[in-house]
Amino acid sequence: MRTIKLFFVCMFFCTFAAFGFQNTQLDYNALYKIKDEGLNNSQVMDIAWNLTDRIGPRLTGSEGLKNAYDWTSGQFKEWGLSNVKVDPWGDFGRGWDVRKSYVAMTVPYYQAIIGIPKAWTPGTNGLISGEAVYVDAQSEADLAKFKGNLKGKIVLMPTSVEAKTTFEADARRFTDEQLEGMTSERVSNSNSVFSQRRISDFRRAAQLRNAAYQMFKDEGVAMILNTTRGGGQGTFFTSNGSRNDPEALPEMEVAPEHYNRIVRLLSKGEKVMVEADTKTEFHESDEKGYNVLAEIPGQDPQLKDEVVMLGAHLDSWFAGTGATDNAAGSAVMMEAIRILKESGVPLRRTVRVALWSGEEQGLYGSRNYVQSEFMKNGQPNDNHAKLSAYYNMDNGTGAIRGIYLQGNEALRPIFKEWFSAFEDMGANTVTIRNTGGTDHQAFDGIGLPGFQFIQDPIDYGTRTHHTNMDLYERLQGADLRKNAIIVATMVMQTANMDEKLPRKPKVFETSRRR
Amino acid sequence: MRTIKLFFVCMFFCTFAAFGFQNTQLDYNALYKIKDEGLNNSQVMDIAWNLTDRIGPRLTGSEGLKNAYDWTSGQFKEWGLSNVKVDPWGDFGRGWDVRKSYVAMTVPYYQAIIGIPKAWTPGTNGLISGEAVYVDAQSEADLAKFKGNLKGKIVLMPTSVEAKTTFEADARRFTDEQLEGMTSERVSNSNSVFSQRRISDFRRAAQLRNAAYQMFKDEGVAMILNTTRGGGQGTFFTSNGSRNDPEALPEMEVAPEHYNRIVRLLSKGEKVMVEADTKTEFHESDEKGYNVLAEIPGQDPQLKDEVVMLGAHLDSWFAGTGATDNAAGSAVMMEAIRILKESGVPLRRTVRVALWSGEEQGLYGSRNYVQSEFMKNGQPNDNHAKLSAYYNMDNGTGAIRGIYLQGNEALRPIFKEWFSAFEDMGANTVTIRNTGGTDHQAFDGIGLPGFQFIQDPIDYGTRTHHTNMDLYERLQGADLRKNAIIVATMVMQTANMDEKLPRKPKVFETSRRR
Repeated sequence: MRTIKLFFVCMFFCTFAAFGFQNTQLDYNALYKIKDEGLNNSQVMDIAWNLTDRIGPRLTGSEGLKNAYDWTSGQFKEWGLSNVKVDPWGDFGRGWDVRKSYVAMTVPYYQAIIGIPKAWTPGTNGLISGEAVYVDAQSEADLAKFKGNLKGKIVLMPTSVEAKTTFEADARRFTDEQLEGMTSERVSNSNSVFSQRRISDFRRAAQLRNAAYQMFKDEGVAMILNTTRGGGQGTFFTSNGSRNDPEALPEMEVAPEHYNRIVRLLSKGEKVMVEADTKTEFHESDEKGYNVLAEIPGQDPQLKDEVVMLGAHLDSWFAGTGATDNAAGSAVMMEAIRILKESGVPLRRTVRVALWSGEEQGLYGSRNYVQSEFMKNGQPNDNHAKLSAYYNMDNGTGAIRGIYLQGNEALRPIFKEWFSAFEDMGANTVTIRNTGGTDHQAFDGIGLPGFQFIQDPIDYGTRTHHTNMDLYERLQGADLRKNAIIVATMVMQTANMDEKLPRKPKVFETSRRR
Repeated sequence: MRTIKLFFVCMFFCTFAAFGFQNTQLDYNALYKIKDEGLNNSQVMDIAWNLTDRIGPRLTGSEGLKNAYDWTSGQFKEWGLSNVKVDPWGDFGRGWDVRKSYVAMTVPYYQAIIGIPKAWTPGTNGLISGEAVYVDAQSEADLAKFKGNLKGKIVLMPTSVEAKTTFEADARRFTDEQLEGMTSERVSNSNSVFSQRRISDFRRAAQLRNAAYQMFKDEGVAMILNTTRGGGQGTFFTSNGSRNDPEALPEMEVAPEHYNRIVRLLSKGEKVMVEADTKTEFHESDEKGYNVLAEIPGQDPQLKDEVVMLGAHLDSWFAGTGATDNAAGSAVMMEAIRILKESGVPLRRTVRVALWSGEEQGLYGSRNYVQSEFMKNGQPNDNHAKLSAYYNMDNGTGAIRGIYLQGNEALRPIFKEWFSAFEDMGANTVTIRNTGGTDHQAFDGIGLPGFQFIQDPIDYGTRTHHTNMDLYERLQGADLRKNAIIVATMVMQTANMDEKLPRKPKVFETSRRR
């Protein structure tokens, strides 16, 4: 009770001090405290270390992600946050973990292959050895030629993936020119890059792959090898497999150089033998997916039912430890709310952090959350009117350089003012553009203000995104520290405005149009 | 016999046509033929493919190198070269091959580790599992603390190796400024970069390592993990182990990120378990080392006893397939002599190609060869006077940009003239500087003109030199084609001069001073 009295007294002064005439004005007192906590007592790299090195890969449904639920919710409690929940969002399906991953070429000579079982495939459960066959099929007619000859074989199919020598740096930061270029509106939406031609090529390829896969099952193939996307020099990318195929074959994704060597040898008529010993485990005891939620209750009696959210997806791929995708974003959001709590800055609205899961399989955690939290029977519920904004982070380890307005011009003067505090950190680009591909879309899709930040790409596209090399080393500590400060500031400012952030008009039409 | 008559007639005209007043003048007819063969019928990438993808790693004493002896000597015969020999140079010692290479972290979670057994170490011969221990010793006193606690353990020692994010490109070519910079003489010799302080630091570290190694043996350590030099993102470097330790422990070299993750976990008090299953095989049936030699006999009766040599080391490291180190150089030298033979250009002196072995362990093949071929009882023999020059290639896959004079200023006008034909290929830098580290030193060391070319670095220092990623993909086909043409031209010109190339004065003094 004493706390509450003190709180009212404080609120009276704070409100006047910090939110004067312009209710979007920067609160320099709070900013000072946030920067002080975020620069001098930063825990962001310690949080990221726990999520990566210590907890490891966090594929949705895996043991790693369950450990991450426990550890992150434990941290939130330790930091004194309220309403900490590991909140089920629905059925995800079977969990899956890799228990052993070994593959090697044994003929024409021995050399281990860098690789890992494809997601949700079974293992070989013991050492197998088989002749490699290059199923060089461009059509279903080509496939037929291989019938009757694939039992017990290790099969590879044509790939356009190469591992070229890189005369450009893996990692880069945006130049001023590139940031300036982002401030113009894009005329076409992002789908337009997929021409009809490309779509039909894609469909044909998928059809051929499916037909091949069925034949491989019928024939009794021992294992499929794959390589997806570039990278190279020891880096390989992983991709989604079918999660619900009880007859799936053992399948591995391997380094492009090792894959293409086998293809070249077979194409020139050399015999290649491959051995493998892989083990995977499915988990069926709890097939639910969860989000981890925690709050700092709002301090203004008039506004504490309103909410500002920040979040990031906690789930990851499994060949690395999901350092930049998305321990980086999770650690920044955790650190941001820790800073807000620890620095004791005034927060009129409730601040809620969410760590999503199932993002990599289709934004499941956030999409299910917004449906149950903000919607009822396809229409906005009361909570829908009470959310001011959702800030998301899922663009890797790079420094924040600005923010995407997601088409909402009304936000420009507000965000411009807030970002003016971060000009010396190189973060002051406000672009009208949309960005997609992650959890803010779940909010934007139902007419709620959801945002992603512009971040320096670093080596996200070349080295880390969904790769075996998305490891702790790839985290840029200085960037993550800055990012937490910027996010904390944005959240604090949003929480303390007199009004909620302006929304786009005709939300549902807009959402359909996207 | 008919051939010989025709040959004398031909020689009469050729000599006058091609070697007029200036006997160093470029022979444009021959150059045309060399370029035609080298550009339009190039086999260099096919040769390189056979050496890498097909034959694989070629560690001295390994099965791969024996296969390479057979295949390269077979090619030389197929091309119609003379005096093809797989020539023993002396005892190398036991051969060694990797038969299985598997290592993984199993606690706190499962993740396979990228790695390979260290050269000439035994395997585990079956699956082993042990707790990882970070022997964080900076002195022998520190070591003592671990006594009695290492039986069956997997040990790691401190490393300064990091795997930083790379904001610079892996691969690069020399700029005009860099090439220009090379044309000035270096004042200090290469040893001066090692300060006394550095040498004593190095000695102390070696002493500590030796003491640690003895303790690990005494304790019964299950396996040692290592990481040497940078790289990262899936690339790791291999290093020389002891070749003659019958009590050597199983030891692996692993990717720096995977190594450092274990170190970080152990340093923070986490338990780490590692499992490994490695198998290596020693070969004792033939412990000799060999060089592969072949010739095009000289066509000038007065000069055919004189020799121009070209060569490269055929042996490689074993975690990749030695593509840039040194299938690239071997393929270029093989292609160069193939071009000379196939194009039928006049060659007054005998041209001899050598593919060395044991280079990576100390230039053994070339050093033993020059001793038996050019020396007797520590003094030059008759052959010593008959060698005009030796051209070597061992700087990776990059385009030739010029040549090192190895301090011999008398060669400048000659090489300048010859390289004038390659200005349009970007190769016309002639530098007085020495370069070291490979087989031309064996010749230079006994006062014979031995040369290396300036080559674009590409990703030699960052990605390929002694790494698991020194694979076929890293070869630059266009560069290798050009290089073979340049080498063939240099050899042709040298073979056809009236005199041998000028030598440095006071050869043995010079060689001692180096």
